[in-house]
Amino acid sequence: MTYQRVAFIGLGLIASSMVHAMRRAGLAASTAGTARSPETRAIVREMALLDTVCDTAAEAVAGADLVVLCVPVGAMEAVAREIGPHLAQGATVTDVGSVKGAVIDAVAPHLPEGVHFIPGHPLAGTEHSGPRAGFAELFDNRWCILTPPEDCDAQALERLVAFWRSMGANVDMMDAPHHDLVLAVTSHTPHLIAYTMVGVADDLRRVTDSEVIKYSAAGFRDFTRIAASDPTMWRDVFLTNREATLEILGRFTEELFALQRAIRQGDGALLHAYFTRTRAIRRGIIDAGQDTDAPDFGRVRH
Amino acid sequence: MTYQRVAFIGLGLIASSMVHAMRRAGLAASTAGTARSPETRAIVREMALLDTVCDTAAEAVAGADLVVLCVPVGAMEAVAREIGPHLAQGATVTDVGSVKGAVIDAVAPHLPEGVHFIPGHPLAGTEHSGPRAGFAELFDNRWCILTPPEDCDAQALERLVAFWRSMGANVDMMDAPHHDLVLAVTSHTPHLIAYTMVGVADDLRRVTDSEVIKYSAAGFRDFTRIAASDPTMWRDVFLTNREATLEILGRFTEELFALQRAIRQGDGALLHAYFTRTRAIRRGIIDAGQDTDAPDFGRVRH
Repeated sequence: MTYQRVAFIGLGLIASSMVHAMRRAGLAASTAGTARSPETRAIVREMALLDTVCDTAAEAVAGADLVVLCVPVGAMEAVAREIGPHLAQGATVTDVGSVKGAVIDAVAPHLPEGVHFIPGHPLAGTEHSGPRAGFAELFDNRWCILTPPEDCDAQALERLVAFWRSMGANVDMMDAPHHDLVLAVTSHTPHLIAYTMVGVADDLRRVTDSEVIKYSAAGFRDFTRIAASDPTMWRDVFLTNREATLEILGRFTEELFALQRAIRQGDGALLHAYFTRTRAIRRGIIDAGQDTDAPDFGRVRH
Repeated sequence: MTYQRVAFIGLGLIASSMVHAMRRAGLAASTAGTARSPETRAIVREMALLDTVCDTAAEAVAGADLVVLCVPVGAMEAVAREIGPHLAQGATVTDVGSVKGAVIDAVAPHLPEGVHFIPGHPLAGTEHSGPRAGFAELFDNRWCILTPPEDCDAQALERLVAFWRSMGANVDMMDAPHHDLVLAVTSHTPHLIAYTMVGVADDLRRVTDSEVIKYSAAGFRDFTRIAASDPTMWRDVFLTNREATLEILGRFTEELFALQRAIRQGDGALLHAYFTRTRAIRRGIIDAGQDTDAPDFGRVRH
């Protein structure tokens, strides 16, 4: 069931974590890969992360029975165009992009007959980027969502599901538009809001010197973590999941204005009821094993 | 320099952490306190947290040379009115409220001559509430802001500063309006935004079943922590720091609309520049020792 040769296009946090997780699981597949930047390729060679580091994506995919596209969503089309003619018959191509509709539109037209395209998205990551940021436990008990086409080859799908499970992930399947809406709620809009809040504070920092940094433990610092994520990746997410993000942003500002109005009018009952309701969802997340119950995320002290 | 008898009015996370931190520092002061709810008083008696648990605030402050008001901001006036006639001459009264202007207006008129009122705010906390949530390390390397009046007694101030430092905190001083503006940026507005985002997701949860919870690790879960904070405390914060919060919220929505417009217009350059700028502030917070550099806040992995 396992793959013989896995090729990674793009060698950042996700690809490197996948390699570590494969090793931990004792998967014997040989690994190959490439990154656009010569610096990243040099680092990966130095780390001895892969069996083969290639200078081009075309070389990397040659002979691979699994190809994993780990580049920002906006770079998917160029990669697909480059690798299309070099893919092995029967190979599976998947990706780890945070948006699925746009990736399907960008990639599918460039893949030849006889290659199985099964888009994917592991809901895991940290605010750190690059091949040195990867670690084997990244996917443990996290969800990987696959959005297979309706006519997807059953055996190819089963194999990819087993592959993700062996790396510690749970696997769910849904269609691409549903994925993009759910992720607009749980990921894309929260990131945009965090970026905005940090941007506002950064503007004020010029007025109030370093106070915004000094006094960040009162809540603000929680926002700065996700606002430290990779800028290119997130630019591409917002440009390619535009409709769903704008839809959820519309709901967000509607709610925010309702709370703002309650503050202006001194409506304490509305505020108290709202803040009580939101407590329950935290409990649900902890019960589902998707976050720690330790105070302050269990931050290390001192 | 140390106090003989410290009285706590309100026995939640902050008061109980102060008692633990006092013990750790070997402060010999006797402790007394009260809480409005009989259940809380019973828990504190069972924990043997204080030397004396009283049924009323008036009893608790009798003979105390330091009184710490640890109730929600909206409850400060009633407490001050009750304890005013029972305060010892030369005693210091301080508080731990998240808003300072409103607390000064509520408390100062009820304190007799010869009592030193030095408002304070330790910038520390977790999403957990109540006396059992306290721990000795809560204030370590966190900032406690004092907003003493201009004619503040120098010796009383020095003593309170030493007290906070002995509990692990750094101490800063500023005037109350400046405190309320800075905290609107670093704490109050971030909390309101987190509550809003969690509220939006909670609405959608009814549509999408448990997906919002299941897939929360993609960013959303970071918001749910601060949105699980005490509803009464936060209602009072927004009602009493109304002007500064509305001012910062106005800047926030202005920025959010600019980013929303960039998404709608496909302005990737603007988004990329914005997301790059916000990365630097995270680095500043880590360098200042106000957060951990461990990925994902160092969340415990499975």
